[in-house]
Amino acid sequence: MKKYGMWTNSGRSYTITNMHTPRPWFNFLWNDSFLMQIDQFGGGKSWHSSEKMPYVPHNNTGVASDLGSVTDNRLVFVKDNESNKYWAANRNFHNEKFELFQSEVNPGWTEITSIHNKIKCSLLLCVPEKDNVECWQIKVTNLSNKERELTIFPYSNSSFCQQAHNACQRVDWKDKVQGLLFENSKSSRPLKNSYFSSDIKPNAYETTDRRFRGMYGILSDPDAVQEGDLSSKGTNFEWQMIAAFQYNLKLKPNEEWTVNIVSGLAKSENSAQIAINNYFSPNFLKFELQKLKDKTQEQFNSFNIESDNENIDNLVNIWLKRQISLGQQWGRVYGRGFRDIMQDCAAFVGFDAQIAKKTILYALTKQFADGNTIRQWSPEWRHPYRDGAVWVPTTITAYIKETGDFSILDEKVDFFESDETASVLDHIRRGMDFLLLNLGENGLCLWGGGDWNDSYDAAGLAGKGESIWLSQACVYATNTFCELLMQLNLKEESAKYAKLANQMKDNLNKKAYDKDHFIGGINDKGERLGTYSAKEAQFFLNTQTWAVISETANNPNDLMNLVETKLKCDYGYKLVDTPCTSQNPDVGSVTYMVPGNCENAAVYCHGNAFKIVADCLLERSDEAFSSLKKILPENPLNPNSSVEPYAVTNQYLGPDNPHRKGEANGTWITGTAGWVYRAIVENILGITTDYNQLKVQPCLTKEWSKIKIHKVFKNEEYDILIERIGYKKYKKILKKLEKLEKSIKL
Amino acid sequence: MKKYGMWTNSGRSYTITNMHTPRPWFNFLWNDSFLMQIDQFGGGKSWHSSEKMPYVPHNNTGVASDLGSVTDNRLVFVKDNESNKYWAANRNFHNEKFELFQSEVNPGWTEITSIHNKIKCSLLLCVPEKDNVECWQIKVTNLSNKERELTIFPYSNSSFCQQAHNACQRVDWKDKVQGLLFENSKSSRPLKNSYFSSDIKPNAYETTDRRFRGMYGILSDPDAVQEGDLSSKGTNFEWQMIAAFQYNLKLKPNEEWTVNIVSGLAKSENSAQIAINNYFSPNFLKFELQKLKDKTQEQFNSFNIESDNENIDNLVNIWLKRQISLGQQWGRVYGRGFRDIMQDCAAFVGFDAQIAKKTILYALTKQFADGNTIRQWSPEWRHPYRDGAVWVPTTITAYIKETGDFSILDEKVDFFESDETASVLDHIRRGMDFLLLNLGENGLCLWGGGDWNDSYDAAGLAGKGESIWLSQACVYATNTFCELLMQLNLKEESAKYAKLANQMKDNLNKKAYDKDHFIGGINDKGERLGTYSAKEAQFFLNTQTWAVISETANNPNDLMNLVETKLKCDYGYKLVDTPCTSQNPDVGSVTYMVPGNCENAAVYCHGNAFKIVADCLLERSDEAFSSLKKILPENPLNPNSSVEPYAVTNQYLGPDNPHRKGEANGTWITGTAGWVYRAIVENILGITTDYNQLKVQPCLTKEWSKIKIHKVFKNEEYDILIERIGYKKYKKILKKLEKLEKSIKL
Repeated sequence: MKKYGMWTNSGRSYTITNMHTPRPWFNFLWNDSFLMQIDQFGGGKSWHSSEKMPYVPHNNTGVASDLGSVTDNRLVFVKDNESNKYWAANRNFHNEKFELFQSEVNPGWTEITSIHNKIKCSLLLCVPEKDNVECWQIKVTNLSNKERELTIFPYSNSSFCQQAHNACQRVDWKDKVQGLLFENSKSSRPLKNSYFSSDIKPNAYETTDRRFRGMYGILSDPDAVQEGDLSSKGTNFEWQMIAAFQYNLKLKPNEEWTVNIVSGLAKSENSAQIAINNYFSPNFLKFELQKLKDKTQEQFNSFNIESDNENIDNLVNIWLKRQISLGQQWGRVYGRGFRDIMQDCAAFVGFDAQIAKKTILYALTKQFADGNTIRQWSPEWRHPYRDGAVWVPTTITAYIKETGDFSILDEKVDFFESDETASVLDHIRRGMDFLLLNLGENGLCLWGGGDWNDSYDAAGLAGKGESIWLSQACVYATNTFCELLMQLNLKEESAKYAKLANQMKDNLNKKAYDKDHFIGGINDKGERLGTYSAKEAQFFLNTQTWAVISETANNPNDLMNLVETKLKCDYGYKLVDTPCTSQNPDVGSVTYMVPGNCENAAVYCHGNAFKIVADCLLERSDEAFSSLKKILPENPLNPNSSVEPYAVTNQYLGPDNPHRKGEANGTWITGTAGWVYRAIVENILGITTDYNQLKVQPCLTKEWSKIKIHKVFKNEEYDILIERIGYKKYKKILKKLEKLEKSIKL
Repeated sequence: MKKYGMWTNSGRSYTITNMHTPRPWFNFLWNDSFLMQIDQFGGGKSWHSSEKMPYVPHNNTGVASDLGSVTDNRLVFVKDNESNKYWAANRNFHNEKFELFQSEVNPGWTEITSIHNKIKCSLLLCVPEKDNVECWQIKVTNLSNKERELTIFPYSNSSFCQQAHNACQRVDWKDKVQGLLFENSKSSRPLKNSYFSSDIKPNAYETTDRRFRGMYGILSDPDAVQEGDLSSKGTNFEWQMIAAFQYNLKLKPNEEWTVNIVSGLAKSENSAQIAINNYFSPNFLKFELQKLKDKTQEQFNSFNIESDNENIDNLVNIWLKRQISLGQQWGRVYGRGFRDIMQDCAAFVGFDAQIAKKTILYALTKQFADGNTIRQWSPEWRHPYRDGAVWVPTTITAYIKETGDFSILDEKVDFFESDETASVLDHIRRGMDFLLLNLGENGLCLWGGGDWNDSYDAAGLAGKGESIWLSQACVYATNTFCELLMQLNLKEESAKYAKLANQMKDNLNKKAYDKDHFIGGINDKGERLGTYSAKEAQFFLNTQTWAVISETANNPNDLMNLVETKLKCDYGYKLVDTPCTSQNPDVGSVTYMVPGNCENAAVYCHGNAFKIVADCLLERSDEAFSSLKKILPENPLNPNSSVEPYAVTNQYLGPDNPHRKGEANGTWITGTAGWVYRAIVENILGITTDYNQLKVQPCLTKEWSKIKIHKVFKNEEYDILIERIGYKKYKKILKKLEKLEKSIKL
């Protein structure tokens, strides 16, 4: 399998050494309100999220897409004034033979370094802890043994032009902001202005692509760089504003030159000025990077493992945490899904419980007074999905088990679009009641606008259809809730809910079974999906794995054997088989998708993580581990998946896809991260927290003989060693332990 | 002044010979439902307009803008397989020395021809009379004296991908459509599919930019062209689908090879197939081009002039007609404005009255039962502008005067969002009543959401503000209506309306005057705009010119003298002076615009055409002609305006613009075309039609000594010669005529 880079800094970074990865490999950098998605060249979008709606002030124009082609909106051109040669130091458009060309992906920043013609140039990109800004640090070093005359042109076409061809928009040099100020007096956005500022005054600047790239120029060879001088003119009413600076340098041998640039958004020129003074204070960036390193170390310290699999170690210790952190804060970036954020939090509690609590409490304000939740906020998505309530008890109990903090249950939280406020415990109750008391003809949960599976979005819209997965998940959530009620000594209430869950379990086995497996659901017309008599989509993954997880299956191992037979491929398990090929408005979007895509029979990794959990619950340790390895980035049986080694993907396009089987459609922003993390930690390694204890119940693959685990639980540090030592040695140790126990008793 | 091309084919085409025009020079190609805006290289957007909303199925991705940079979405790469050299024949990305490189802009098609390495390649682009499709014809000729092995790659990135990264979207080769079919099963659009088809089966094809351009490639040097072979693979769930074909040719000396390609939209594969069979029938394109030529000739025949100014002749005879045709059919392309289309029709009746009638009757369905109209349809724009009704009598009487067809007044037309239907005459009445019976404190027309000047959109929202221009235009429209009523022998009604108009005239002179000029308006707060006591915007162009046009001014020449003093610059007259510099929510958008832009003191050419009309009404012939020359494309005092020689512009950014004074912000889609046409024909040449006669009352500049005019009026052909012959000769001719008259009487 072709390697494009390697772990560096003990797995805290991944250094891409072959920049031509199969598709752009991304890093996400963010704070509360600002987010960058950048590829290995530093190109890509930035978002600022307003209260109601995330929007994209910085577009990646000139770019086919963030998956389909490389972005190109942050460039540093270097020009050698003696030879008149120029090159894009962080992009190498013409694929020249650079002495060095690499991208170091870190948790919170990316640094691209190149050496060409004995000039070293690095571009470090970072989003600071606060404010709506991206920070650039450019360093240029003369590695030759003679003085060099260089011109450096940092360039950004990340659309400062909030609206193209707007008569109210202008850009000018402003001394106050030490750079270019882009003003739009008529913008409806709260932050009307943006800026591109430098801590060293440039010799010249440019504001429009017409003059930089040239009216008929190519960005790889900009007219202005070829000519060597920028116009230092502002502009207005422009189709494509850009920002570019020009620095004329003379560098002695080994001399290094550094410039800091910030590009951000502001309400006014004055507020921009205040922010900029902060960014350009001494060591600002150094402190910001240190904060990021500290955060990573803090999360590492809270839980880490050491096995003989470096990839898994680095994912668990650093990178899945990073991915989950993104999810719990930004949802899926394009929007903040209730179910998504709650699931991410269930994993996040394991290494950052206090932030998780805050997020959980905020998310609960998106629950209606009837117990259901909205599908998504920022922006709102109101299609009547019905699974939101499932994730309320499961996530909150995960938080309590990790922290022992029962007080969360007493917090008062508003309901969505309601004058009512209730305790968190009541929020859970309302959710359970919503699920358990709104049943269909077969005594199963109503499907409504859909469940975890977004794409069965029309099967239950008329209020008759019933979802099997939702019924199973409801049983699971209810049992979780009953357990909590017992902890609270509310035995009677616990028994009441347990009875409802048991009834549901019975109904599932009586009404939702076809020959040897659980069906997928029953739509409004009474058609049973996921049966052998169905024309297609006869066998669903999730209703088998969740039959195990929810303990509703009578023959769980048989179900999982069928999963192996019917759904397995080289890179995971299909979500359904066979895929739908004919559009069915009585089922939903899934039937419109090209076979192999998303819910229509992709290897949907989130569902594959459920499968690993189910395997472990049945002590199918080898199946669990082999399933894990199938979906992790570097599966030799799926060499063209194109996933970053430091991230997991939402899905691999399924074997039925007519053109692109095995390819990942995107990474980072996926619920897969949280569930894969938990499957490894809680199920394979078996490190779980209960209301009063830390449990260790591994379901370890034979491939792993030894693994060290470090965990902080209720402020105590635990070092755990799991070692496969054989029965004899185990017996010996047991004896020793017995002796030790006796001696203590004495 | 730098020349970039020349008139060819007797002004029926303009051939761009220096392809690097100051900005892309456009051609518009269209039929009822499909429109292309292409630059000299053939790049640019295509639209399909659905019933309710025009949308853009074909985006120009990879392109900074249609003004700010060149579009690049239709390319023909040629590769010489002996030398391995390749070039984009219609784009010449690397600015190589081509033997020939030109673009012939025709009414309805554009043909780009290049010769490089002794290979001639032409690309002809055309929208046929019907259907949602663009037709390409590519011809390749071997001009060398040896056989050549070539590969030809036509490429389109004009986003067949109706939605990026859509799981429901795929593209595959289909024999039925002789090319690539792009299907989106979940599209909400009526035409879900698009295709890219060829009458010669290509040797290979490509469907994604990832493989054509290359994941990290540059479109000027696509990986696939360099490698020489396309993959012939379909794709789905793609960020950027493209269409490219590969033809392997061997051409003998002087051998010519031709391929026809069509790229369009269809409901289904079958309907695509039917359409394609039509396009690929023998001589289809030849017939389509002949139809376009015939239409141009027909419009030429209906009215044409011959002066010593070739530019003006070609504009009047061919190109302004083309521009007005676009306007009356597509409005301003981004939407169909009531006022825009009605004004365009007032000019259009002069050379295509029957189509004008259809358009007028349809537009009247956008008039409310209260007499006002919506601002725009497709898409609807409902801001409560109040000037729609002004254009109803003025345009309808223009139609009647041209044709003598009074029957239009009896046509029954629905009102917008109303069950009521009424005759066209009643539509006019309702409009007049709306204007004349809804007056403010000063007895002037209410300003409401605005008038012709879109950007005073907040001055009268509270229902108190009064518009001076609207009041003047109302007097003009009412007088026009009174004249019509007299023709209909409705004397009493005519007198009633005339009285109202006179009252309004009195009020204007009493209440809307400041020292020596008409003010701009009075806003809801009672603030008088356009007075000397105002902080800025003290003097408006339109309220002086329309004081003349509406005959409400007592001292019209003084007003026009002031216009010369206060508003003139090298390239026309500012719409207002001084521009607004501080944002005022009690006035509207105009105050938010950068000074010099649009209504905030640009040289707004539509308003300049009003000024020419006013000049002529006062027999200020030299002022009229010099004003006309200032705003026409090739004004040597404004050499960087960047306007196509065959089109007029909406505006030149005003002398107060901080960065871009004199630049045109866009061309073609502007009301300037209709008014400049009428100003030349009706006012400067003085060729007008009245209810019962053709009038010739020129207001000719001294610069013109002789001009021939041909006009068809009520099916009679008139050849008119206007010649400046001096008083003596004139007397002689008069005598001759008297004699002739006597002899006839005898």
